[in-house]
Amino acid sequence: AGDAAAGKVKAAVCAACHGANGISVNAMWPNLAGQKADYIIKQLKAFKAGTRKDPLMSPQAAQLSDQDIENVAAHFSSLK
Amino acid sequence: AGDAAAGKVKAAVCAACHGANGISVNAMWPNLAGQKADYIIKQLKAFKAGTRKDPLMSPQAAQLSDQDIENVAAHFSSLK
Repeated sequence: AGDAAAGKVKAAVCAACHGANGISVNAMWPNLAGQKADYIIKQLKAFKAGTRKDPLMSPQAAQLSDQDIENVAAHFSSLK
Repeated sequence: AGDAAAGKVKAAVCAACHGANGISVNAMWPNLAGQKADYIIKQLKAFKAGTRKDPLMSPQAAQLSDQDIENVAAHFSSLK
């Protein structure tokens, strides 16, 4: 399972767009606070595998290990 | 702009999976309550155009007009 504390560290780069509190800074980028962890995992894996494409997200996801993905998902889903 | 009241009516079918209050009933489906309206619009249009594919969402989006999409987005983003 995901480790939210490790995820918080890993998610420092995510916070630039998705907000340190998981409320995104731009109307076109999704809020992640309280989102379903499994949904976040599914989307990050899709970006990593290329079954879902986005110029910003694809390169980000490419650098994440499966454990990173679980940790980041645990982190964001734990935010209110 | 979107009409949240009309969107609520149109979103009756969405509530089956995304929850009447926008908190989804399944870990693999995203919560939509309070999500960014423009992000919801962007994803529904992507599902409608096929640039994003999902066996459940693609057929749903195919039936929505652009106004429906704006209304549904206004509805879900207005939920807390």
